[in-house]
Order: sequence, then C-alpha cells, then structure tokens
Amino acid sequence: MTAFDEATAITPDGEGCYHVRLDERFAIFLPDRVTAAVNGGVLMATVLRAVLDTSPHPHPVATSAHFLRVARLEPARVQVAWLKQGGTAATARATLIQDDRPVLETTVTTGSLGPPGDGGLSWTGEPPPLPAIEQCAGFAMRAESAAFAGYAGQVDLRLDPATTGWLHGEPAGIPEMRGYFSLRENRDPDAYLLALAVDALPPVVLGLGPFGWSPTVELTWHMRAVPAAGPLRIATRGRHISGGWFDEEAEVWDGADRLVAQSRQIARVGRGA
Amino acid sequence: MTAFDEATAITPDGEGCYHVRLDERFAIFLPDRVTAAVNGGVLMATVLRAVLDTSPHPHPVATSAHFLRVARLEPARVQVAWLKQGGTAATARATLIQDDRPVLETTVTTGSLGPPGDGGLSWTGEPPPLPAIEQCAGFAMRAESAAFAGYAGQVDLRLDPATTGWLHGEPAGIPEMRGYFSLRENRDPDAYLLALAVDALPPVVLGLGPFGWSPTVELTWHMRAVPAAGPLRIATRGRHISGGWFDEEAEVWDGADRLVAQSRQIARVGRGA
Repeated sequence: MTAFDEATAITPDGEGCYHVRLDERFAIFLPDRVTAAVNGGVLMATVLRAVLDTSPHPHPVATSAHFLRVARLEPARVQVAWLKQGGTAATARATLIQDDRPVLETTVTTGSLGPPGDGGLSWTGEPPPLPAIEQCAGFAMRAESAAFAGYAGQVDLRLDPATTGWLHGEPAGIPEMRGYFSLRENRDPDAYLLALAVDALPPVVLGLGPFGWSPTVELTWHMRAVPAAGPLRIATRGRHISGGWFDEEAEVWDGADRLVAQSRQIARVGRGA
Repeated sequence: MTAFDEATAITPDGEGCYHVRLDERFAIFLPDRVTAAVNGGVLMATVLRAVLDTSPHPHPVATSAHFLRVARLEPARVQVAWLKQGGTAATARATLIQDDRPVLETTVTTGSLGPPGDGGLSWTGEPPPLPAIEQCAGFAMRAESAAFAGYAGQVDLRLDPATTGWLHGEPAGIPEMRGYFSLRENRDPDAYLLALAVDALPPVVLGLGPFGWSPTVELTWHMRAVPAAGPLRIATRGRHISGGWFDEEAEVWDGADRLVAQSRQIARVGRGA
C-alpha cells in the first residue's frame, strides 16, 4: 500500500460518516513556513473514497470542491449524504469536517464512463505540446524542499522547460504550465490520483512573476476516462487574472494519449513571494 | 420589471427559506415536446438571488450547480445554508426543492471582485473572434419556436454564421458556438443575467451533427467582473466528447471588452434529434 493510499484511507463509522487522518506525508507549508496544511488534491481524493464507498456508479464524473478553511494535520471526518441515486447519475454532498467545522465542501456526481464511441459521437481536441520526459526537469517546490519533505517528496513532477523560466527569475510572460506527473512510489493512476493531478502543477501565475501562495477557493474537475498506466501529462493555463482572482484550467492526458480529466479552479492572487 | 426579473424573484420566508415560482415564460420543452421544464440558467439565477440576499460579499465568484431532476412549472423553494462567512469569501449551500426533493444543488462562494490590477497582477487572454453583430443571424430554437414561445421568446441570440452550418444540415465539424446574447427586453447585464448567459448558446455538439437533447448534469461558473451595458459576446467550445458525455466551456465578454464570466459544464450526449 502506497503512502498516497494510506493518506487517503477512510474508516466507515455508519450513517455516511467516515473517519480519516490527514497525513503529514502530503503536508504543505503555509506562507509563514511553520503552519502545515494538507494538499487540496489529497483532500479531494479522501472525500471521493468516502463517496464511492456507497455510490451506485463507479466513476466520479463531476466533483465540485469549495475550500473553506485550512486542513490541519489532525483527525477529521467525511460526512456523505446522497441527494439522488438515478440510473444514469447519482449525486452526493460530501463534507470534510474538522473541529465540527466544514473544511472542504464537495458535491459529487457519479456515473459510468462508456467506451469512447458511446452515444454515437467521439471527438477530442489537440493534446498539449510536451517535449519527451527526458527533456523535462525534475522539480521540487523550493520553499518546501529545504525544510520539509511533505507533498513535494511524494510526487514526481517533471516540468516542460518552456514553462520553468520563473525558477531562475525569467518568467515566460504567459500563465501556463506543462509537465509529467506521477507518484514517486510505483502506482498506476486512477480516479483518486486524477484528483491529485488536477492541482499538481505550480500555480499558473508564476509564469508571470514571483507571486506568493495562491489559495484555491473553488475547484471543479471532471473525470473523462479511466487512465492507462504510466505518467500523466498535465497542461494548465489561466485565461483571466484580474481583481485579485485568477482562474486555472488543467487538462490531464494519460499514457494512451487520451484526455482523462479536466478542471478549472479559481484562486486568490498571492501577495508577493 | 422585466420578465426575467419576475421569473427569478424570491420571497423570503425565514430561516434561509425562499419561495419561488418557476415561470412558463422561460420554459423549454423536453424531447417529448409536451413536457415543459425550466431553463437551467434561470434556475441558477433564482438560486443566486436567494444566496445574495444574505451574503456578506456582493459577487457570486464561484457557483457550482448539479442538476438532479427536471424542474417543473410549479411552486418551489430555495433553502440557503451558510457554511462560512469570512472576510474574503463566504460559502453557502443552496438547494432548489420541488415536491420535497432537491432539483438543483448548488454551492456558491461569494466575494468581492476588485479593480483589474488588484493583487498586483492583471492579464487576460485573447477575446473570441466574432463578426459584427449585424453579420450574425437571429436564432430561435427550432423545436420550441413552432409550438411555444418560452425561453426562446425571451432571449435575443445572434450566432456567428461560422458556427451555424448545422442549422441547414452542414455542421462545421468542430464543437464550437459563438454569438451575441441579450434579453429581448431592455435590461443591462448583471450577475443574474450572466448565470443565464453561460448556458445560453445551443449545445456545442450540434457543431458535429444532429444530436438530440443534451441535459446538463453539472455546470460551474465564475463571475470575473461586473458586466458593462450592451449585448454580451459568448464563445463556447467542447474539448472531449466520449463515452456518452461531453464538456462545454463558455467565456462571456462584455461591451467594454472584458472577460466577465467563465463556465464549464458536463452533459450527456443526446440520443438523436
């Protein structure tokens, strides 16, 4: 069992309640560099395990997540309530709770992802341009790597050099990131790892300059296919950075060259590095 | 007071409950061409009125909407519960309920949209290519226009001819739509009209062929700026149509050439026209 599977494990306690333990191996540091929080993708994966435990359909087709408070490295619970269980889709509300306060509020619609031509129609846009993985640079979040293994020690992220100029003071001038993503442990991707992947790259605003911590306020992602084995390719972009907020869209492609997940999040622009 | 404002009006009844009346002037027909439902954007606008009634912040920055059941032309209520009211953002759960069953489940995070340069950063991608409004064709949903005014009678939609080949049996072969959008009545855009705009164009799959009703399963949209007066420009695209599901992303630009709203929805591929 990998650290990721342990960190996202759930213990059912009846009536839709699941005990979880937020895990320091996926911690990130807040800007004070003392307070430890937990990566948002790991929180989403944990909540999805609880939802899928009683879902009549296998795949989390649509997950909407509103991040309300910082998740601490303490015990927590997930409360799941089904709003509808239909033949095509089922929808649950699932809340991650700490100290009796909601930390992460999600709504999840599950369904079944058919074969590509199901419904009589199959069409996909162009995949993102990425150089071979050998030409991409290994990457660890700088602020974290010095002091703490945490999240950065668990993931293997290799960034397209065209999107890493900001690492040496030369941002590309466009809010885009691209890279390969996998766990450092040998583990094939699935729905839970996709929940991690959609928020795995550095914030797109770093492509414009040295901006600080960018807390995600809301992130919705769609699972589009069951991913094949191998590293995932992720491309992110922002379209509009204005008024103290920015959007970030991610596409995740698998080793079989299929689009397997899409997301958009809205986040606050950080107040300086 | 316009038909749109009347159709989305709320009557508070205490403890977060609001009575609403779903309005035949924004009805759409289901594929049986007998059953009347209500346009999803009007439902979202109605729910947002209830949320903003007690919000500490003025703008619905992030609205996640899961569509569970068909909304009928009958009385309904909206139940609002605040999960967090913080200095930067507040999050509410708001449910549209009919016959004691949830029809539309939303989570809304409100905030304040600052001036463009707030946070020290301002950047926007290219606006969508659209010909002048005079070169765009007025449009009414065919199946509806014959039998029933409803939604199509309320909106003034003018589509870019590059995206209307499907109207005469020559789909463009790409899942994109572009057009100008306003109400037929004289009313400036605001947050509520943006909720209508993000799902206002015909489904992008029509750009690929004559597919039938495409029910939205989930739609999340972000308000990015307070819109200026005048018609809105909307551009939509799909990225992946596979396994019986498709995504549709919308950007909405205002008369002052600003990106004012973004959305992505996931919907079922229709089963033939």
